[in-house]
Amino acid sequence: MDKPILRIFKIGGKVVEDERQLLAFLKSFSDIHENKILIHGGGKWVSEMSQRLGIEVTMVEGRRVTDAQTLEVVKMMLAGVANKNVVSKLQACGCNAIGLTGADGNSIKSEKRPIKNGIDYGFVGDVKEIDATIIKQLISLSLVPVFAAMTHDGHGQMLNTNADTIASSVAVGMASGFDVELNYCFELNGVLEDIDDPESVIPDIDPVKYNDLKARGIINSGMIPKIDNAFEALKSGVKAVRIMNSKDMDKLANGALQVGTVIQN
Amino acid sequence: MDKPILRIFKIGGKVVEDERQLLAFLKSFSDIHENKILIHGGGKWVSEMSQRLGIEVTMVEGRRVTDAQTLEVVKMMLAGVANKNVVSKLQACGCNAIGLTGADGNSIKSEKRPIKNGIDYGFVGDVKEIDATIIKQLISLSLVPVFAAMTHDGHGQMLNTNADTIASSVAVGMASGFDVELNYCFELNGVLEDIDDPESVIPDIDPVKYNDLKARGIINSGMIPKIDNAFEALKSGVKAVRIMNSKDMDKLANGALQVGTVIQN
Repeated sequence: MDKPILRIFKIGGKVVEDERQLLAFLKSFSDIHENKILIHGGGKWVSEMSQRLGIEVTMVEGRRVTDAQTLEVVKMMLAGVANKNVVSKLQACGCNAIGLTGADGNSIKSEKRPIKNGIDYGFVGDVKEIDATIIKQLISLSLVPVFAAMTHDGHGQMLNTNADTIASSVAVGMASGFDVELNYCFELNGVLEDIDDPESVIPDIDPVKYNDLKARGIINSGMIPKIDNAFEALKSGVKAVRIMNSKDMDKLANGALQVGTVIQN
Repeated sequence: MDKPILRIFKIGGKVVEDERQLLAFLKSFSDIHENKILIHGGGKWVSEMSQRLGIEVTMVEGRRVTDAQTLEVVKMMLAGVANKNVVSKLQACGCNAIGLTGADGNSIKSEKRPIKNGIDYGFVGDVKEIDATIIKQLISLSLVPVFAAMTHDGHGQMLNTNADTIASSVAVGMASGFDVELNYCFELNGVLEDIDDPESVIPDIDPVKYNDLKARGIINSGMIPKIDNAFEALKSGVKAVRIMNSKDMDKLANGALQVGTVIQN
């Protein structure tokens, strides 16, 4: 039997924090008719508020070191401001959004990242378990889950978790019940053949093509972990992963046949 | 046919902001076996964070004037920090909490309070509509709704709303489907015969007794609006309203016959 479709979208802080871009994105997101989930970041706001409050911002390999004070700021800006802005604006578009963190409904449990190679990320959680049942039940009430990038450890501790990781974990977790399409929305038009030509989008990538592109040095190093993660998700049952420009959400909602780069096995 | 029981509890900022008190309260709240909803404030944190950020705190008749900047702080501290602390700590107690504002699931719609007698409360919402269906559906999934005291206007605007008002509005909204008991938890043991004697709790009040107590000048003026609101809720179908000490939650959870002051028609 065919499984129902579930379309998962991840947007980063750049979209969430720009009111005009956010509204345009959310309007198109509301127009998507299939089951859907939104996952958002909001890291720039966390950094800005940390600075306003005199809390030092420390990043290691692009990941935020989250001490106790920074964790409070993450709750404030991600679970508070960003999530409620997104939810209330989706409601205004007629989309029955419900804001969640991993603690809500015990939907995403994580484990505090252990200290490794002398790096202590603090209150950062690595995803351990998705409760696909509760997420499915919320969807069955015609609700649209909107996840802020936070999880919990089940023992009363909220943890900061990378939004890309939450998106792929939720996608994999939902794959047994749905045909899942995972869409990473960012500021480029997709995976580019030529990083200096925004129009040089590679429309689709499969493992053979990926190896060829890598061998020819066409895919830039920043994109490689993203594509590796995409193939990991595909291996775990996700049907397709798309890397696209958040500004192209209207095209996708309008049924355009080709948007961004689609990665498939 | 008997309706299922629904027990609604409202706690103020004083409980939410004191980690030890909060944990004790939430542990006992988790032990309540009937359907339940928690509504919380967190006003002191809003005031403290406003001051830290250099935002002026203005109160008129005990109500916060909520300008655009203050609204952001309310999102941060109520929907963010307070709500996620409560939800993650309930999860640790084995209670499957789901944090909500009125925007989430479009559960509580409000209207921006009009300027009256020259007083502009800013982004403050007066409750207009409770969606009892969605709240009931969440409860039917064995979830425990935990409301932060914020609502939305349906047009993309979050609004600050008094937690007592949300509690009574939700209680009234749920009364057609449930036998609702509404519990206001605060720092006194109940309605007192003698404000200087914390043990002088009046165990129950009905309209006749209330008029008598008022005529004899026994009920102090600060308590009168609370009791008037309780009778309003009873008129709208709520079965009982209790005014109790949040520290007595363990007694209630353990089935004590008399806790606080019970107001009934």
